[in-house]
Amino acid sequence: MIITLLTDFGLSDPYAGVMKGVILGICPEARLVDISHDITPQNIEMAAFILEKSVPYFPTDTIHCVVVDPGVGTSRKVLIARVKGHLFVAPDNGVLKRIINTAQAHEVFHADRAEFFLKKISATFHGRDIFAPLAAHLANGVKPEQIGEPLDQYVRGEIREPELQKGRITGEIIYFDRFGNAVTNISRTMLKGLGNIRIDIRHHTIQGLVSAYSQVKPGEPLAIIGSFENLEIAVREGSAREQIPLKYGDKITVLF
Amino acid sequence: MIITLLTDFGLSDPYAGVMKGVILGICPEARLVDISHDITPQNIEMAAFILEKSVPYFPTDTIHCVVVDPGVGTSRKVLIARVKGHLFVAPDNGVLKRIINTAQAHEVFHADRAEFFLKKISATFHGRDIFAPLAAHLANGVKPEQIGEPLDQYVRGEIREPELQKGRITGEIIYFDRFGNAVTNISRTMLKGLGNIRIDIRHHTIQGLVSAYSQVKPGEPLAIIGSFENLEIAVREGSAREQIPLKYGDKITVLF
Amino acid sequence: MIITLLTDFGLSDPYAGVMKGVILGICPEARLVDISHDITPQNIEMAAFILEKSVPYFPTDTIHCVVVDPGVGTSRKVLIARVKGHLFVAPDNGVLKRIINTAQAHEVFHADRAEFFLKKISATFHGRDIFAPLAAHLANGVKPEQIGEPLDQYVRGEIREPELQKGRITGEIIYFDRFGNAVTNISRTMLKGLGNIRIDIRHHTIQGLVSAYSQVKPGEPLAIIGSFENLEIAVREGSAREQIPLKYGDKITVLF
Repeated sequence: MIITLLTDFGLSDPYAGVMKGVILGICPEARLVDISHDITPQNIEMAAFILEKSVPYFPTDTIHCVVVDPGVGTSRKVLIARVKGHLFVAPDNGVLKRIINTAQAHEVFHADRAEFFLKKISATFHGRDIFAPLAAHLANGVKPEQIGEPLDQYVRGEIREPELQKGRITGEIIYFDRFGNAVTNISRTMLKGLGNIRIDIRHHTIQGLVSAYSQVKPGEPLAIIGSFENLEIAVREGSAREQIPLKYGDKITVLF
Repeated sequence: MIITLLTDFGLSDPYAGVMKGVILGICPEARLVDISHDITPQNIEMAAFILEKSVPYFPTDTIHCVVVDPGVGTSRKVLIARVKGHLFVAPDNGVLKRIINTAQAHEVFHADRAEFFLKKISATFHGRDIFAPLAAHLANGVKPEQIGEPLDQYVRGEIREPELQKGRITGEIIYFDRFGNAVTNISRTMLKGLGNIRIDIRHHTIQGLVSAYSQVKPGEPLAIIGSFENLEIAVREGSAREQIPLKYGDKITVLF
Repeated sequence: MIITLLTDFGLSDPYAGVMKGVILGICPEARLVDISHDITPQNIEMAAFILEKSVPYFPTDTIHCVVVDPGVGTSRKVLIARVKGHLFVAPDNGVLKRIINTAQAHEVFHADRAEFFLKKISATFHGRDIFAPLAAHLANGVKPEQIGEPLDQYVRGEIREPELQKGRITGEIIYFDRFGNAVTNISRTMLKGLGNIRIDIRHHTIQGLVSAYSQVKPGEPLAIIGSFENLEIAVREGSAREQIPLKYGDKITVLF
């Protein structure tokens, strides 16, 4: 059984490693995969996006343990969700909103049976004390129904979608990757069948999409449908983030 | 069999990956878990602390391979220790001192039988050539007794404990995590039953402990028993390290 | 079956994690080992060097998935190579040149049968869509011969070897590790039997090799045969890269 980890703990501290120790103590056969531990601390939006884009590449029955948890130590609930054949363990803070919103069906449970947690619960590290043990018990075959009651009221959060106007889509930058590529919230689907498009971002105008970085000269900006299936702004052999430059939330306009 | 790795090698270089190749070549079934590879280079104190705080969350019989080894290439010994049902492979430089000092019983061996090392030993990378193969052979069921003789003389090192005076405990900051939380060497046990306390750190005074970050306003400093079971200084939704600011070794006083 | 990953994707983005999801979906028993994900973006030379130096420490039959791929989205080929009992999946851009050049025998295949790729191929992330599935199918026992035809014409690239003159070897710095140690392209073999040597680098002269860092005083530069079996310049308890200082491509002269 695969358990993925998606947290804002980083890899320098022993936090992720200790979660793995807890999991393997409960479910020795678990296969552990790190999706990322470098979510910007407490950035629920970023974690929700990365989760949505990563889950489809894992096999059915994977258990995803998501710990971006600014409310640790408060009375925020712990959720288990069953969506598209995958299981999710996460705090009730909206981090699952994209997974849930894009699904036809989903079941959400309030995971509150303490016999599935570690015996001692710290004030600051529920990743170790609650989320890791829950994921491990699920991997052992415990059903969400055994861990808590179905829940109707949970944080659904909003997803900021691009604005559609006549001849124009206005989106924004929601993620930068290591290469400095700027990922927008404009999906491939939204651009389908639009014909010739022009993209305005900061003081730059980009004509049309390319299908490979190599279609522009080194150092030039380009627009491409990236691997997240969203419109991305990149600079060939460079960083769009640094060279244009761009930042989180920057507006991008597609004219057609 | 689980083998954990705790090193100062970082993850950019292939050093940790190559250790895993060596381990899986000797013990193909080993389950590998990274505790951290980001110990500050050659910082034995930090590694000793992280090891002490991580080990209790791994199941009995786990093998911990610790490579923070400024004396690589010299005649410093290689140790195998059996403590609390776990096995440890580490250089003889004090990195095991906290694990050994907090245990009722421990056995230490001088691992010097070269048939359990790689054939060729480099001058600079005993993690690959000695420590990884030893951990793998232990995972295969080889006993420490087969790898070397029991050892009485090894580097025990000192552990700097807080000073206790009338109405006052003086400790220091021994670790910062990714969030900028400052971990002190004052344990939960030392604070037990003290009643109202006041904490002085740099120019700040903090009244009492909180049980969740959310009990103070964003941007405010707080004191909490963190997940290491030690007193920590944090700033809600911020970094105590940068905002107070604090550094390694800073004194902290608890008045009661 | 072990599959290693060597990429320039970093660990902050979900790219490496998603590749692992794809692999485990195809070959659930695969053992995954990260060699490094911190190759400098698109630095084929660095990846070729790290691969050459890491592979010998993995058991025979390991599958190495190498994704440093500036030509992603173009018509550059995808290669599978069988060298020294290991299998390699990589873009045809020279990243395998050192592995292939140091081998007596090698077989290279043009991996173009799309039934072994994901169904949908993005323009920018063939690591996920092509290289990961190929590695997983190989781990499942599919033969390279089933995935593509043998190939004679592929990018062989050059390897910059040191210059040998009377009484002098001139090499260069080709890698820095996390500790700031400078690895040169001068191998142990080239220095064999030279007797007394003197090493000139920038404004420094180093007399002879040491066999342990501790043979010089803290803060002093030294020359040593490092764990890559190449001549390295280091500073004891310091960083040669920052303190001398040194950079990629700096010339180093060995006089004998």
